[in-house]
Amino acid sequence: MTSSLNEAIKNTRKERDRYLADLKEFLRIPSVSSDRSHDADVVEAAHWVSQRLIELGAKDVQVYKTGKHPIVYGELTGAPAAGRVDPLPTVLIYGHYDVQRPDPIEEWLSPAFDPVVRGEELFARGSVDNKGPIVAAFAAIDSMAKAGSLLVNIKFMIEGEEEVGSPSLPGFLTAHGAMLSADISLNGDSGMAAVDTPTVTYALRGSIGAGLTIKGPSVDLHSGLFGGVIHNPIHVLAELIAGMHDEQGRVTLPGFYDDVLPLDDDERAVLAELPRDEEFTKMIAGVPELWGEPEYTPVERTGARPTLDVLMIQGGAQKTAIPSAARASISMRLVPDQSPQKAFEQLHSYIEKNAPPTVTWELSQYDGAKPSIVDRNSPWLVAMSNALESTWGARPVYDRLGGSIPAVTMLYETLGIESVLIGVYRPGDNLHAPNEKLHLPTWERMIETIIRFLHAI
Amino acid sequence: MTSSLNEAIKNTRKERDRYLADLKEFLRIPSVSSDRSHDADVVEAAHWVSQRLIELGAKDVQVYKTGKHPIVYGELTGAPAAGRVDPLPTVLIYGHYDVQRPDPIEEWLSPAFDPVVRGEELFARGSVDNKGPIVAAFAAIDSMAKAGSLLVNIKFMIEGEEEVGSPSLPGFLTAHGAMLSADISLNGDSGMAAVDTPTVTYALRGSIGAGLTIKGPSVDLHSGLFGGVIHNPIHVLAELIAGMHDEQGRVTLPGFYDDVLPLDDDERAVLAELPRDEEFTKMIAGVPELWGEPEYTPVERTGARPTLDVLMIQGGAQKTAIPSAARASISMRLVPDQSPQKAFEQLHSYIEKNAPPTVTWELSQYDGAKPSIVDRNSPWLVAMSNALESTWGARPVYDRLGGSIPAVTMLYETLGIESVLIGVYRPGDNLHAPNEKLHLPTWERMIETIIRFLHAI
Repeated sequence: MTSSLNEAIKNTRKERDRYLADLKEFLRIPSVSSDRSHDADVVEAAHWVSQRLIELGAKDVQVYKTGKHPIVYGELTGAPAAGRVDPLPTVLIYGHYDVQRPDPIEEWLSPAFDPVVRGEELFARGSVDNKGPIVAAFAAIDSMAKAGSLLVNIKFMIEGEEEVGSPSLPGFLTAHGAMLSADISLNGDSGMAAVDTPTVTYALRGSIGAGLTIKGPSVDLHSGLFGGVIHNPIHVLAELIAGMHDEQGRVTLPGFYDDVLPLDDDERAVLAELPRDEEFTKMIAGVPELWGEPEYTPVERTGARPTLDVLMIQGGAQKTAIPSAARASISMRLVPDQSPQKAFEQLHSYIEKNAPPTVTWELSQYDGAKPSIVDRNSPWLVAMSNALESTWGARPVYDRLGGSIPAVTMLYETLGIESVLIGVYRPGDNLHAPNEKLHLPTWERMIETIIRFLHAI
Repeated sequence: MTSSLNEAIKNTRKERDRYLADLKEFLRIPSVSSDRSHDADVVEAAHWVSQRLIELGAKDVQVYKTGKHPIVYGELTGAPAAGRVDPLPTVLIYGHYDVQRPDPIEEWLSPAFDPVVRGEELFARGSVDNKGPIVAAFAAIDSMAKAGSLLVNIKFMIEGEEEVGSPSLPGFLTAHGAMLSADISLNGDSGMAAVDTPTVTYALRGSIGAGLTIKGPSVDLHSGLFGGVIHNPIHVLAELIAGMHDEQGRVTLPGFYDDVLPLDDDERAVLAELPRDEEFTKMIAGVPELWGEPEYTPVERTGARPTLDVLMIQGGAQKTAIPSAARASISMRLVPDQSPQKAFEQLHSYIEKNAPPTVTWELSQYDGAKPSIVDRNSPWLVAMSNALESTWGARPVYDRLGGSIPAVTMLYETLGIESVLIGVYRPGDNLHAPNEKLHLPTWERMIETIIRFLHAI
């Protein structure tokens, strides 16, 4: 057993340059799922994935069409160890081949889809989110298969809509439940709490978005002739947004915190081990001071507390007129046991109660994702924790991720499959921002960690 | 005297179609002063004006270059009545040949620069602001000259930067003081208090603009990973804007009302005669309810009270990130005796006092214009009032215009020349908005009013 594990790890070190070349090829495909003009690139990325699965020796490889972007599936049967009679465990490896938009393009030091290595880092959109982890999983399986040490069944499900809320995934899970059945899902779309700190993620925030439009006068009005009698829609929008938080940074929507699971002392102690303190967060974000609920630490505020952010605001033009309308896009991040639908309704109630009679308004709902949390002491998380510790030579920390991965809740709710979450992105790796980058030694350790995890279970 | 007046008015009725054709030709030139791509059109409009002045028989006609758009000048010497020995009075006719942008273009029922008559109205950008009044003045002078009834000296000063704050005008006035000397300026850039209500404008609001930028994190940050610890620049901007007014619609900038001339009972009675009441204003603006200082009428709030409006707000994008910055463009309308510079400093103090330590900010100052007011009982205003009454068969009302015309204060402060203000735009004529339109019978009455005014003085 140990010798086949060592063999697999030796393989991965030997093949490292080939795996990296593979990743670069993948990164050159601008598979931006939120931009229609990149639809053909998204399809190309799906076929790139299916081609790699075939090369890995997977069977039943198929690019499934959906209402939007395809889902790629394929499976590998493990070789049972001599004398073993139990059925082999099945691991469903999840990933997404789609990426965020590269905007603002002018802030990239090198083109977003032209991967470049500078020092120990590989710069490209998708390098950490999520193409790096996908290629790491392929590399791990390849090295294990060649060493004859793949002792589990593997199923791959790689989707193309994660960055737009995975709208096609629930239907796919329902339609292909038997095919997808598995004991656990391995999800590499999470991150590292800090450089050199191996991390197991045991909870994710959910999310819900909304578009708010405030409508004032029927046309733009001369601000000299009408200033003083018209409630400017920009002012109304500003007043509503300003009222969504109190002075301590708490969200004021009625009932917003009612279903929030409180943190107990145990969990606060676990989260306190994370090295992401106030000074560090300030430095990473480049802000003069942090903000938010004073009775919680930064780690607790981003992982275990719900938040509300206006992502976009727009109204008026560079002319002397009171505009006829102003718009905002609002996103809430939710924690167990909040419901996206209920949070949207709380936002709706807030606007209904606080919008003045001087304007009319519209609130539209965007796609949401439920929050999730798993037992920190489950055997799967213990196995991952051990794999990380063996690879890094350091005990891992347990983190709650502030972001959302819709697939995690969907897999659990539809098929009863829990997820083990790891990832390669560290604070400062510019996730969703210009100059996204992958720390290559961390990526290599991820490959070895996956090998150790799959070997152990 | 009366017979030559009648002759002039007969001329203008006879030549009405030619004057209208002239106006349409002028309106076809898209002389948008705030758009560099229209710079050639602006120059074309200046030359169109100078050509008309030459045709009117003006001398010393010249297109003066400035740092931005040219100013057109020309003068006509009146023929003194037999036996008159006093020097003739000199009237400086002011106008601006530049127009506002036509945006949003898609809301125009017919193209902005393709003048179309529908019913009694002529639709085109610039039809009321300010090409209609310029051609009305040309028509009046033409009719009078042909009738031999031009008994005053006329100077024309037609600029091309009114819609961008007349930045070149102060320098021009200083450089050409002797040439421009006059007893009074006639300014047709004001409006009508209501349809069929002849109006003399005796006060203008001033204005001052500012650009505010709130800077948060050094790059856009993933709203899941950072939501809860970063003070979102959009929220900060919204909080600052929301705090600029109290619940009664009063501006909260420190000291903002200190220099505001209070309204006395006399003036409130004069303004109360204006037919622009609450219901009418609501209807024109298309809003469910009006807004603003409750102890003042709508007419007082737009004419005699200072206001603050955010004209433009912008931040973030349609992606799940807390943006690194958010921006707003702010405009204040000022009344006598407020100073634009002081109002800007009050805004600066407000931001300085209220911006939180979680962000940095920048406030830049745009061009301003001083407010102005003249004596309602001056002989010039009495003469105009009589001319309006003879033309309309109705006693005119006295109005304070909420808009700003930089030239009015500049002429008074630099050369000591007061202005008599009239105009053709009525509420609902879409000044600065799509479908700007000119009521042709009102325009014809403006020509006759100018003839009567010039004849009387």
